Amino acid sequence: MAFWFNSDRERGRIFADAFARDLPDLPFIMDSMQFDPDDVRYVLTWNAPRDLDRFKNLEIVFSIGAGVDQFRIENLPPQVKLVRMVEDGIVRMMQEYVTLAVLVLHRNLQAYLAQQSEGKWQTLPARQAWQRRIGVLGLGMLGQAVIERLKPFGFPISGWSRSRREIEGVRCYHGPDTLGPFLGETDILICLLPLTDETRGILDARLFSALAPGAALVHVGRGAQLDHDALIDALDMHQLSGAVIDVTEPEPLPPEHPFWCHPKIMLTPHIASVTQPETAARSVIENIRRHRDGLDPIGLVDRNRGY
Amino acid sequence: MAFWFNSDRERGRIFADAFARDLPDLPFIMDSMQFDPDDVRYVLTWNAPRDLDRFKNLEIVFSIGAGVDQFRIENLPPQVKLVRMVEDGIVRMMQEYVTLAVLVLHRNLQAYLAQQSEGKWQTLPARQAWQRRIGVLGLGMLGQAVIERLKPFGFPISGWSRSRREIEGVRCYHGPDTLGPFLGETDILICLLPLTDETRGILDARLFSALAPGAALVHVGRGAQLDHDALIDALDMHQLSGAVIDVTEPEPLPPEHPFWCHPKIMLTPHIASVTQPETAARSVIENIRRHRDGLDPIGLVDRNRGY
Repeated sequence: MAFWFNSDRERGRIFADAFARDLPDLPFIMDSMQFDPDDVRYVLTWNAPRDLDRFKNLEIVFSIGAGVDQFRIENLPPQVKLVRMVEDGIVRMMQEYVTLAVLVLHRNLQAYLAQQSEGKWQTLPARQAWQRRIGVLGLGMLGQAVIERLKPFGFPISGWSRSRREIEGVRCYHGPDTLGPFLGETDILICLLPLTDETRGILDARLFSALAPGAALVHVGRGAQLDHDALIDALDMHQLSGAVIDVTEPEPLPPEHPFWCHPKIMLTPHIASVTQPETAARSVIENIRRHRDGLDPIGLVDRNRGY
Repeated sequence: MAFWFNSDRERGRIFADAFARDLPDLPFIMDSMQFDPDDVRYVLTWNAPRDLDRFKNLEIVFSIGAGVDQFRIENLPPQVKLVRMVEDGIVRMMQEYVTLAVLVLHRNLQAYLAQQSEGKWQTLPARQAWQRRIGVLGLGMLGQAVIERLKPFGFPISGWSRSRREIEGVRCYHGPDTLGPFLGETDILICLLPLTDETRGILDARLFSALAPGAALVHVGRGAQLDHDALIDALDMHQLSGAVIDVTEPEPLPPEHPFWCHPKIMLTPHIASVTQPETAARSVIENIRRHRDGLDPIGLVDRNRGY
C-alpha cells in the first residue's frame, strides 16, 4: 500500500510531513523515489497522468484543485474513485476573493480608480446593500461559503443550482427552467459552477440579456464557461456595468486579448483560490481514513454529473 | 417647540415625511419657512451656523455626520447637547468600505491591477488571513462594527482605544503607552479615530515606523489626522506597502497633490460612509423621544473628550 504524490516538491514536503505524522503506516512516494506500481492505492495529482493504468490496485485519485474537469472521468477505471479537493484554504480564499469582487462592484471602485487617475474628486451615486441583489450560480460548498460572508452585509441573495437546495435566507432556484427568473432578479452574478457539458459556454449573450439591466459579473468558475465576445458586447452596449474575471480560456490570456485593457473589466490571473498544502494534506488524510472505514470520501465525484 | 432642519432640500423631504409620520406634534422647519427662533428646541446641521445663538431655547444640536470636529463644542452654550449621527446607514457603508479596503490590501489588488495594465499574467505570493494581523485604531461603534465583518475571515484582530474596551476575540489595548506594542503587531492598520487635539496628526512618521514592516494603512478617520508627506516617505522607503485613503486635509485634494498618482495609494473622495436620510431620520426621532423621556440621546458628545 502506498500514496503517490504527483506534484511539485515544495508542496510535497509539507504533505510528506503530514503523512509521516498522521498516517505513518502508509508509504509516501514523491519525486524520483523507487516504488512498485502495484503498491499504489492512492494518487494525488493535478490531472490524470498518461500512465495511470500502470497502477493496477489504484483506489482513489485525489485532484489537487477544487475542479475536476481537467480529468476525463470516463477514462478512469470504473472501480477508481475521483475526489475533488475540498479543504479549508480553498474555501477561505474563495470567500475573500468573491467578497472583494462584490464590494468592488457594489461600491463602484473601478469608476473611483478611473477618477483617481484623472485627479477628479467627485462622489458617485451609491446604492445601499439592500438594493443590490446578489445571485450565486452554483450552490455547492464554495457557493454556500461565499453566501455566508455576503449575507451579513444585507444584500438580498438568491442562488441557482442544478439540483434542489435549501439555504436559510437565500431564495433558491434549481433546474434549467428557473434560470430566467433567477437572472432577472440578479444585479451581481457570481459564477461558481463546475465545468461540465451543461455549463460549457453558459455565460453567453442570452444569459447576459436575461440579467437585471446594468448587472455585473464575478466569474470564478472555469474559463470555458464564458463567451468572451458576448461579455465585451454586453459591457459595451451597457447591458452589463462591470465584470471581475479570474478564469479565462485559454490561460494565460494572450497579450492582445481585449480583456486586459477593457475599462469595465478587472482581470486577475486565476488567483481567487489556491489549494493550501497544509490544510489540503489534512483533508486528504481524513479522506483516506474515511475510505478505510468504508465511508465515501468528502468531495467524491459523481460519475454521471461529472463533479 | 420646533425642529429646524439646516441641510439640503432633498434630504429634508425625507426627514419631513418621517417627522410628519412619527413625531406629528413637533413642527418641522426647513428651507425658507417662516418661524419664531424661540420655538426651536432642536437643530440638525452639518456644522454650527453663525447665528445659532438666536435660538434661545435650543436643547440639542444634531450633527448630520458621524464626526463632530467641525463643531466647536466649547462655543455651544453649556446647556445645549451635541449629538453625533449614529445610524444604521453610516455603519453599514463603513463596514463595506473597510472590508473592501482590507481585502484590496490583503489580496494584493493594487499589484494585480498594475499587472493587468501591463498585460501580465502572473501569480503573486499570497498570505493567508491568519497571517495578516489587523489593527483597528478607535473602538467606538464604527470600529466594533467593522471588526464584526472582518472577524469571520480569520484575520487576527487587535484594537486600540483611548479608554478601556473589551471585545470578544479582539486583543484590546488602551491608552497612549500601549500604542507601540499595538502597532508592532499590526499588518493592516485601520484608522477610525475621531478628530480631537490628541489625534490631530497622529498618523505620522513615528507611528508608521512603529508598525510591522511592510504594513498597510486604511484611513477612514479624518484628513487632519494624516501627515501626507510622512505617508509618501513611508511608502517610498518600503516601510509601508500600500494605503487606501478616503479622507484628506484639505478636501477636495488639490489636483497637483502626489496622492492622486502614487502607485501604492488608492484614493477615494470621502465616500466610505455617508449619512442615509431614511435611517438617519429614524435615529434622530428616536433620540428626541429619548430626550423627552429624560434619557441621554445615543451619540451624545462628551464635552471633555470632544467626541
